Parts: sequence; structure tokens; C-alpha cells
Amino acid sequence: MTSLSKTLSELAREVGGKVIGDGQVVIRNVASIEEAGPGEITFLANARYRPYLAGCKASAVIVRTGVIKDDLNQPYGKAYLETADPYVAFARILQIFISSISYSRKVSSLAYVDPTAILGEDVTLFPSVFVGPCVRVGRRTVLYPGVYLGEGVQVGEDCVLHANAVVRDGCRIGNRVVLHAGAVIGSDGFGYAGEGDKRIKIPQAGTVEIRDDVEIGANTTVDRATLGKTIIGRGTKIDNLVQIAHNVIVGENSIIAAQVGIAGSTKIGNNVTLAGQTGIVNHIQIGDGAVIGPQSGIPRSVPPGAVLSGGIAAAPHHEWLKVITLLPQLPKLWNLVRGLEKKLSQLANRGDDDHSSHARP
Amino acid sequence: MTSLSKTLSELAREVGGKVIGDGQVVIRNVASIEEAGPGEITFLANARYRPYLAGCKASAVIVRTGVIKDDLNQPYGKAYLETADPYVAFARILQIFISSISYSRKVSSLAYVDPTAILGEDVTLFPSVFVGPCVRVGRRTVLYPGVYLGEGVQVGEDCVLHANAVVRDGCRIGNRVVLHAGAVIGSDGFGYAGEGDKRIKIPQAGTVEIRDDVEIGANTTVDRATLGKTIIGRGTKIDNLVQIAHNVIVGENSIIAAQVGIAGSTKIGNNVTLAGQTGIVNHIQIGDGAVIGPQSGIPRSVPPGAVLSGGIAAAPHHEWLKVITLLPQLPKLWNLVRGLEKKLSQLANRGDDDHSSHARP
Amino acid sequence: MTSLSKTLSELAREVGGKVIGDGQVVIRNVASIEEAGPGEITFLANARYRPYLAGCKASAVIVRTGVIKDDLNQPYGKAYLETADPYVAFARILQIFISSISYSRKVSSLAYVDPTAILGEDVTLFPSVFVGPCVRVGRRTVLYPGVYLGEGVQVGEDCVLHANAVVRDGCRIGNRVVLHAGAVIGSDGFGYAGEGDKRIKIPQAGTVEIRDDVEIGANTTVDRATLGKTIIGRGTKIDNLVQIAHNVIVGENSIIAAQVGIAGSTKIGNNVTLAGQTGIVNHIQIGDGAVIGPQSGIPRSVPPGAVLSGGIAAAPHHEWLKVITLLPQLPKLWNLVRGLEKKLSQLANRGDDDHSSHARP
Repeated sequence: MTSLSKTLSELAREVGGKVIGDGQVVIRNVASIEEAGPGEITFLANARYRPYLAGCKASAVIVRTGVIKDDLNQPYGKAYLETADPYVAFARILQIFISSISYSRKVSSLAYVDPTAILGEDVTLFPSVFVGPCVRVGRRTVLYPGVYLGEGVQVGEDCVLHANAVVRDGCRIGNRVVLHAGAVIGSDGFGYAGEGDKRIKIPQAGTVEIRDDVEIGANTTVDRATLGKTIIGRGTKIDNLVQIAHNVIVGENSIIAAQVGIAGSTKIGNNVTLAGQTGIVNHIQIGDGAVIGPQSGIPRSVPPGAVLSGGIAAAPHHEWLKVITLLPQLPKLWNLVRGLEKKLSQLANRGDDDHSSHARP
Repeated sequence: MTSLSKTLSELAREVGGKVIGDGQVVIRNVASIEEAGPGEITFLANARYRPYLAGCKASAVIVRTGVIKDDLNQPYGKAYLETADPYVAFARILQIFISSISYSRKVSSLAYVDPTAILGEDVTLFPSVFVGPCVRVGRRTVLYPGVYLGEGVQVGEDCVLHANAVVRDGCRIGNRVVLHAGAVIGSDGFGYAGEGDKRIKIPQAGTVEIRDDVEIGANTTVDRATLGKTIIGRGTKIDNLVQIAHNVIVGENSIIAAQVGIAGSTKIGNNVTLAGQTGIVNHIQIGDGAVIGPQSGIPRSVPPGAVLSGGIAAAPHHEWLKVITLLPQLPKLWNLVRGLEKKLSQLANRGDDDHSSHARP
Repeated sequence: MTSLSKTLSELAREVGGKVIGDGQVVIRNVASIEEAGPGEITFLANARYRPYLAGCKASAVIVRTGVIKDDLNQPYGKAYLETADPYVAFARILQIFISSISYSRKVSSLAYVDPTAILGEDVTLFPSVFVGPCVRVGRRTVLYPGVYLGEGVQVGEDCVLHANAVVRDGCRIGNRVVLHAGAVIGSDGFGYAGEGDKRIKIPQAGTVEIRDDVEIGANTTVDRATLGKTIIGRGTKIDNLVQIAHNVIVGENSIIAAQVGIAGSTKIGNNVTLAGQTGIVNHIQIGDGAVIGPQSGIPRSVPPGAVLSGGIAAAPHHEWLKVITLLPQLPKLWNLVRGLEKKLSQLANRGDDDHSSHARP
């Protein structure tokens, strides 16, 4: 945290929003609703957390428009910053108070830089970094210890590659990209031709292109293409431990949560949301704006805007055992029910016959 | 393995348990039931492996009380160490015979240590370690090659951080903690505010606290909190490739198996067991002592002591195709059955009417 | 890509196959069907992509026997290499044109090699490599930056260990093995004995053996055995982010896709295929040649040759909510249907009685 201080009115002007109560209250930091104290601003994410306000010691609270009734005038003795999107205001205010780390903007003598590599101005290279032949690194980019850039890699400006991130030969990283620790970009795609019992490796001759403003999570893997490129589109954010296979193309501003796996050559559109542990088969397309729930399996293409789920809620173990024993018998159950339907219909008809016979004199 | 040797009686005294047969037999090593030979002790994990005893060449066998009938006196020509919990005895005896690795207790000249860092006595730093500004490392802690400790990190005493483990700035690691190779502690939580099509990063200003006696698996990721702390409680053991999101709090002595994912702000209690590949949504609570089966999806809070499962057993492919085709039609099937029930009831009533009409003269 | 050029006839002789059209056309490179231009050969993976041929600018195309009718003689103005297995031909031709990377065959002065380690001829060690005591590395093997080889590790000939791969003490790697970036071999198995609320670590005293021609994906983890060995059999290929637990034995030429998890002591046969995100419990056996679909859960042993699936296709969210609400009530539904069946049967019998009574005079 910095030693910066701002009045609530100043913050409201900078991030947008309306002050309710004392705009002159001085804010020096951001904290959670349970931990915030005087001089701090906090965030009421959800109206259902409103009861926390009573015990909250923050000087000011970011709230969604309408959560605090204006006429109450500073309820709970606090000032409020009211805004249509409190998440955005919260993010912006955090960005103001969280000082960006100041880097040395030097190349450590313990880093290895190939003589043919070209480093932009003000790059920071920590010890044990490896920069291979013909690599280019843009201005102000930071390479933490243990980062590996293979031959011919290009990294843009203002990127941060955290400790032990790996970018293999020929891959390109845009501007303002963040690779978290242990992320691997450009590992071989998983491709083999079968010859009898043996597997012949299909050389993975393509590369990976990570476009501007992408963030890639810790220990996530993005495989290089067999031919051509695996592409992660501008502004897309990928969480930890995600697997992106060869020749996958992900669009712009999509969100891919932890432990998702996307198989080879699949195309993910723009503004797609994939929740955690979802698996997507190869050679399909997920349309723009699709939202896929956690632990889903996606075996075929999904149209734009679709909202799909495939996860199952766990149940008490002994009851669940019965369920999963019966599940494979679902086709049998259907047949049984169809059979009953038919018999019942026959019986009903026969009953009608009986009735008609009764009706006959 | 060491050159240590002990009689079975000595071992029984050290780890607890009762000798059946010759307590003077000398034990020099531990081996599996298939591989053990003379001078070695092995372990009968389960009474159902009893038939292996006939061919087993070990000098002694650890068994659960009652598995070997005392009156048989040294069946199969072996000596036995009988105990109520053979796993614990096995662990203890392994700890006796497996020599702990002896470290140099020196700081390699190929490690980088910031001048402001404070290293305890007898720490071992291998080459290519990075220790950032204001870091503190406790006595006898071992940092393997490629370990990264960011600014202000605190690591306790007697910890082992395996090769390429990463602890980012401000995180705290307790005493006797083991981080396996490639584990990442303190990567950014996955938090964005949406503004139109764009994603605004919510700075992740919190940290991670790993308490005493925790073990974290290879390539597991534990994200830092947005504000405050992500916490792993004392004695909890986490397997490989697990994802722990921002602001998660895990209690004490819990067991989290490989490839589990826990989403943001969820609280896991004490003595909880999460089996492999389970996924847990954000903002819920898993009560103390809960046991969750493999591949489960947990979409809502779970009370203490609950035993839940959600995994499904795979079935022959062609049969399974029918099952998953019918599964989405389960609501239709219910309606069909309800409809049949109603019709049948009407028919039965009509039948009764018929009967009554018959009864009428 | 190299500056190599070959006629189509030469390629056909080298990889097998029959030329349709002009065998003298000169090929200098391989490219995808959309991107290939003159002087390049491409690959028609599947007859359903045949329409692409019209717009394709490649000089030659690899096709499966029968896809192109011989009598058409060079349809679309191209030459063809016809073969029974175009994937194999494609792999072989790529291997011809993709120049293997030329390594320095030197030990970087920035690598650490213990004096007791033995390095074969022509090994390449990049900066920041760590080679521990008593390690042996075979001829022509390449260790990328950040690779760690613990005490007593043996690595065979012609291996490539990518950046930040870790092999812990005592593990053995065969010949021609590839470990992708961040892979961890020989991390501790996940074994604890419970004593009251506490967990006692069972020391993991075994090792891992990776046999010849194995490939292990980026950030995949293979745990060491408790006692004995975890084994990956010859020719087996493992994708990214896979978890192989302690004492697992995988046979030969098997294929394990991304994010699969295999629990302790399970045996996987030869030529087994495990699709992505599948989970396999401990202490079971998967027979030779078994094929397991994506996201499957395997709770018990699988016979040789079995083809199993367990994945579920995601469905529209609101419909799926109904399905998963009803799913736990499947046993109740069965009972209901059984009840209806019984009632219907009674009613039918009673109907028969009625009929018979009608029949009586």
C-alpha cells in the first residue's frame, strides 16, 4: 500500500459515482468489510451483506446505486460512494491505492541473455532468467527469476512474466500480457500417428500467439500448433492449471476458469465464459458470448449466447450409490415405462369395450 | 536407506505394538510385501492380501491386531509386529529406516540473496535460488534450485521447498512446511470487473498464509487474496495439481487430493477429506469432518460430518451413449410416469365403479 | 524449417505411398490445407475436408488411399501422395522437413554440475541447470534452463528435458525420453497415516522409472513410490497436467490425455487410451487396449479391450437444473414405476376376472 491519501469526493471524481454523506472524509487504503478501519474504504459487493455495515469500521463504503437510501444521509455514520457498477469502482480504487511494484529496470548480471537478443528500454531481468537467440523483449517488460524465453520469442511492452514461466521457441507474446508463475507457453501439442502398437510423433512445428492484455494463470499450459498457430485473443483471461491444446483459437475478452481443458483445434469465441474444470473436445466451436457452467463436458459445438451446464451436485454417499447403480439402467426404465403406457392404453381400451358391452342390452 | 539395524522387539517398543514370534530377528530395512527379503520388515495393509504371506520372504510383517492368530505362533515362519493401526506403525518404522537427507547447511554462491534478507542458522540454499528483499527464512530450512521467494516473504523453520517452488511477495509459510516442486504460492487471484466487453483487473492486494506442518503438492497453485489472506490451516495436506483460489480458507488437518479445485472465498473446515478432481464453487462452507468422494461437484454448503459423492462410474460406450441421450429427458420421463399414475388411478377407480355396477343387481 | 527440397516421388519412396500426378513436383515445406502455397505439401486428414482442395494452393497433398480417384489424374491441378495411413506419412514428412534443433553440445558455465556426476558425450546443458551428486546423463541428452536432477538420478541418451523440468533423487529416465517444461518426476507420493486428528507422513522411499521413448507433458506430475517404483512403460505418451500417483504402473505405448488423474498403485495396461480429465481410483487394473472416454470416472478394474465412457454432455442451463434436481430421485422413480407395474398387472388380472365372470353364464 502507498502513503497516498484522497478524499472520497476526489475518488468519486476519478472512478465515477456519487458521494452520499461526507465527501471530505480522507481515504488512505482499501480493505475488506470485516477488516476495514478508519481511513479505509471498503466494498459492499452484495445487498445481502448489508447487515455487516452495522459493525463495519471503514470510513467509506462503495455501494451499488439504490442499496443505500439517499434520504437516510450517512447511515451507520459512514460515507458512501454510490455507483452503477461497484466492482469496477472497487477495481479502480484498488488500482489507485495498491502501488505498482517498482522494478529495478536493470538486467541482472546473473541473467543469461544471448548476444543476438534485443531488449527494449527499461526492461527488468531478474537472476536466472534465460533469454535465447534472436529474442525480442519490449520496453518495461519484467522477467522474474527462472523465466525461459526460447529462440526467436517475441515479448511485447509492459509485460510481466512471473517466476519460472516458460515461453518456447518462436512464440509471440503481445503487450501488457501477464504470465503467472510456472505457466508454459509453446509446449509440444499432443499428436501421434499410430503405427501398429507404436506411436510416431507428429512434430509440432507451429507456435503460439498470445495477444495484447491477456493474462495466463499459474502452471497453465498452452501448446504450440502442429502447423500454424495456437492463438489466445486480445483481453482474454485464463486462470490456473488450464490446458489449451494445439491449434486452439480463443477469441477476445473471454474468461477461462481454473482447470478447464480445451482439446485440439477447437475455437472459442469472444466474451465466452468457461467455468472451472470444464472439458471441451477437439475440433468444435464455442460461439461468442456462450456461458458454460462448472465441470461441464462439451462434446459438440455450442451456438453463440448459449448458457449450458453439465455439472452434477454431489449427494449423500449411500443415496448416490443407488442413483449411479440405476443410472446405466435408464434406457431399461424408459422401455419399462413405454411398456406400461402401452399396456395401460390397451387396458383402458379394453375397459371401454367392457363398458360398451355393459351398455349393450 | 541407512545402515541402521534394530531387532523387532526394539521396533515394537519404539512405535508401539506387540511382537508375535521371534522378537530378536534383526531388521535393516522396509520393503513391499512382494519385494521384501530377509532382514526386511513389510506391511500387510489389508487382511485380503493375507495370501501374499505364504510367498513373502520378509523377516517380519506389520499386521493389524487380530489378523494373525496368536496361537499359530509365527505362521509362515515369520515374526509379526501386531498393532491397532498398522499404517501408523509402518509410517514410523519407515521414518526410522529412511535416513533423512543430509543437507550442506550452506548458501550456494550461485544463489541470489538480497542484502536485506535474513537467513536463519543452518539454512541450505541450492544454486539458482532467489531470495528477495526483506525475506526471512527460518533455521534449517532448505531451498532447492530454482526456488523463488518474493519481497517480504517469511518462511519458518525446518521447511523444505523443492525445486522451482514459487512463493510470491508478502506470503507467509509456517514451520515444517513442505512445498513440492513447481508449487506456486501467492499467484494473483482470478478477479476482473466487467466493463462492457472488457475486463478490468481487480488488483490482488492480499497474501497467502500457509501454517505449520502443511504439505503442498507438486505444481499445485494457491492464489493470494484480493484483500486479506488465503489461509491453509495447520497440518493440512494438499496433493499435486490442486487449485486453491483467492480468499479460500482451509482448516486444520484436512486432506485434499490431486486435481481438486476450490473456488474463491470458500471455507473448508478441519479434518475434511476431498477426493481427487472434486470441484467446489465459491463462497460456500464445507463443515468439519466432511468427506467428499472423487470427481464430485459441490454447488452449495455442506454440513459437518457429511459424506457426499457425485462421481459417476463409466459404462460401456454404446450403452452409455443411450444413457446420456435419455438423461436430459428425465423431467419428461417423470411427467410421463406421473401421467401414467393418474390414468391408472382413474382406470382403477372406474374398474371399481364397474365392479360396483356388477354388484348392483 | 530447413532449406531442404525433395520431389514428391522421393518423398513417396522415403515414407511409403503412391504418387498420383506429377512426381517431379518439388516440395520444400509442409503446411496446413488453408495456409499451404506452391512448393508445399499438405494433408487431407479426412475425406469430409475434401471441399478445401478446390481453394488449396499446395503443390501436393497427402491423402488416404481411395479419397482421390486415380482416373481423375491430378484433380484440382495438384499432385497427390496416396497412402493407407496418411497420419503416419504426414508425421514422417514433417520429421523430414522440420530441422531438428541444433544444440551447442556444451555444458554452460552457468550450469551447476556436481563433481561426482557423469555426463555423456555431446550433452547440452543450458544455464541454471542443476545436476546433483552421482547423477548420470547419457550421450546427446539436452537439459534446458532450470532443469533439476536430484542425487543419483540417471537419464539415458538422446533425451530432451525442457525448461524447469524436475527429476528428484534416485529416479531413472530411459533413452529418447522427452520431459516437457515444468514436468515433475519423483515428487513425494501422497501418503499419510491418521493418528487422531493428525496426519503422520508415510515417507516416500521409492522412486520413478520412466522407460525408453516416453514423452511426459508440461507441468505433469509423476509421484515416486512409497516403496519400490512408479513405472511408465516404454513408448507411452502422457499429455499436460496429468497426475500419476505413487506406485502406479503404466504399460507400453499407452496414451494419456491432458488432466487425467490416476490414483495410487493402479496398473494401466499396454496400448490403453485415457481421454482428457478422466479419473481412475487407486488399486485397480485397466486392461490392455482399453479405451476410456473423456471425463470418465473409473471406480473399478476394466477388462482388456473395454471401451468405456462416463462423460455427460452439457445441456441448456435451465433444463439441466431440472435434470439434476430429479437425478437423486431416480431410485424413487424406479420404485414408483415398479409400483405402477404391479398395480397395472393387478388391474389387468382383475379385468381378466371381470371378463371371465362375464363369460360365465
